[in-house]
Amino acid sequence: MSWAIIATWPFALKGVEKASDIIKESGNALDAVEVVAKAVEADPDVDSVGFGGLPNIAGEVELDAAIMDGKDLSIGAVAGIKGFMHPISIARKVMEKTPHNVLIGRGAEEFAARMGFKNAVLITDKTRKIWEERISEIEKGQSPYEGHDTVGIVALDPKGDMACGTSTSGLFLKYRGRVGDSPLVGSGFYVDNTAGGAAATGMGEDIMKGCTCFYAVELMRQGYSPKDAAEEAVRRIHKRLAETKEHVGDISIVCMDNKGNWGAATNRPEFEFVFASDEVAPAVYKVTRVSGI
Amino acid sequence: MSWAIIATWPFALKGVEKASDIIKESGNALDAVEVVAKAVEADPDVDSVGFGGLPNIAGEVELDAAIMDGKDLSIGAVAGIKGFMHPISIARKVMEKTPHNVLIGRGAEEFAARMGFKNAVLITDKTRKIWEERISEIEKGQSPYEGHDTVGIVALDPKGDMACGTSTSGLFLKYRGRVGDSPLVGSGFYVDNTAGGAAATGMGEDIMKGCTCFYAVELMRQGYSPKDAAEEAVRRIHKRLAETKEHVGDISIVCMDNKGNWGAATNRPEFEFVFASDEVAPAVYKVTRVSGI
Repeated sequence: MSWAIIATWPFALKGVEKASDIIKESGNALDAVEVVAKAVEADPDVDSVGFGGLPNIAGEVELDAAIMDGKDLSIGAVAGIKGFMHPISIARKVMEKTPHNVLIGRGAEEFAARMGFKNAVLITDKTRKIWEERISEIEKGQSPYEGHDTVGIVALDPKGDMACGTSTSGLFLKYRGRVGDSPLVGSGFYVDNTAGGAAATGMGEDIMKGCTCFYAVELMRQGYSPKDAAEEAVRRIHKRLAETKEHVGDISIVCMDNKGNWGAATNRPEFEFVFASDEVAPAVYKVTRVSGI
Repeated sequence: MSWAIIATWPFALKGVEKASDIIKESGNALDAVEVVAKAVEADPDVDSVGFGGLPNIAGEVELDAAIMDGKDLSIGAVAGIKGFMHPISIARKVMEKTPHNVLIGRGAEEFAARMGFKNAVLITDKTRKIWEERISEIEKGQSPYEGHDTVGIVALDPKGDMACGTSTSGLFLKYRGRVGDSPLVGSGFYVDNTAGGAAATGMGEDIMKGCTCFYAVELMRQGYSPKDAAEEAVRRIHKRLAETKEHVGDISIVCMDNKGNWGAATNRPEFEFVFASDEVAPAVYKVTRVSGI
């Protein structure tokens, strides 16, 4: 395969279509990842990423995002950032313009402003209304929303370079400052040109307990197909957590190796994702609950 | 071995002595980890952890800490938290009292206040002076300090339970909001009763590119001794980064398996750490630069 892109959830379809054109032109996996994430971030109909994302318990839309370059394992990530439309692009600037990998909260916001990113209001009439209703309902105590809707992307470009990224507004009604797996390397994302890449979506609290994406990439490195790697990564952490927990959170993952072979797995009844390559037009695919759990 | 504790750097010695008594009494690995970290956090002579830690570029002491329970893979972590003496204890409360694993910045501070933690001034006359001098020197541009001084702890208790933890003030002169490997699961720490545990110290930006602690635990799971696992984990990420980088940051790691066997490795000329068990009194040990890099 000359190039390929895989991304979580059907809402990534439009972004993947756009990124397919980009990767043909620029030939750059990082660009492709950023374009997919930006399309989802700007979409007000997606209530779990960027603009129109559901707020935290305090009514604030706090965003997390990350990007990783499979050439040299460079990382850029932001967490708990408010008031910017495109955290994925800020994460990329962290990677490219600072000596650091991860900036959070106010420090990340100040950095974004220095880089020229414009402030944006991220809450919408719709999400404010949902938030107000839920808040008045749950004077009985918070139960974390089963959020499962991070956009996660892995891309391979014609030069053989890989990249991956994530973007999310996190769990609805999360505590202020809560961070899930999405901006945590190895948990929400990982990519290495020498093996492959992976991105996750679901209950970040449980995904990170297994460093699920790093583990999936290790399995590909050992010779597992991306499908088998995705399935074994989900299966292992699910089974380990089920030893002590009655309910394991949602865990879904997309994987791609450095040849453009791909796979996905989930512990939900089903999980949909998007794939495109020079050989196949962008389309939505589905997997069902992995066997053996 | 009935119980064992390993921790990074000689400055952990006093804490490990205290924790040795605790683990004999309470028999609890989590308690032992917390006690070691607290002793280092409260020590004004340690300029890289807690009270007396060197500040960020803005003159603020921003702290990161994490704790993990090898029984069920529970995690508590805080990042970019200011004004509290014991981030390790706040991290433990995140693990025990919230539906989340990671809280950052203001959200973490508000949570700490709700839990009854008292505010503390963390900068000292000594660290303020060092900061002022360096700031006036480097009007020529920031070069990140080769910080290498996170306290990282792995403990095994008489019940066979394991725990690990980290605490740090991060790189001197870091950007506001910069987060390194210490509060990131799999990068700065990882533990699983079914295999072993690891904790890292050094240049967090490079450590996290290899999910170094998760990888070391995987190697122990595959049958590597803790010493071999530590060495191979350091060696692999060092070699991978050296393919594209002229200078790889400091990476040091301590490991222990679920039988109490232990090891450490570094890419520095040398690295010192502390070990104690029911068979051996607390003492400082040293490893030199791992072979093959």
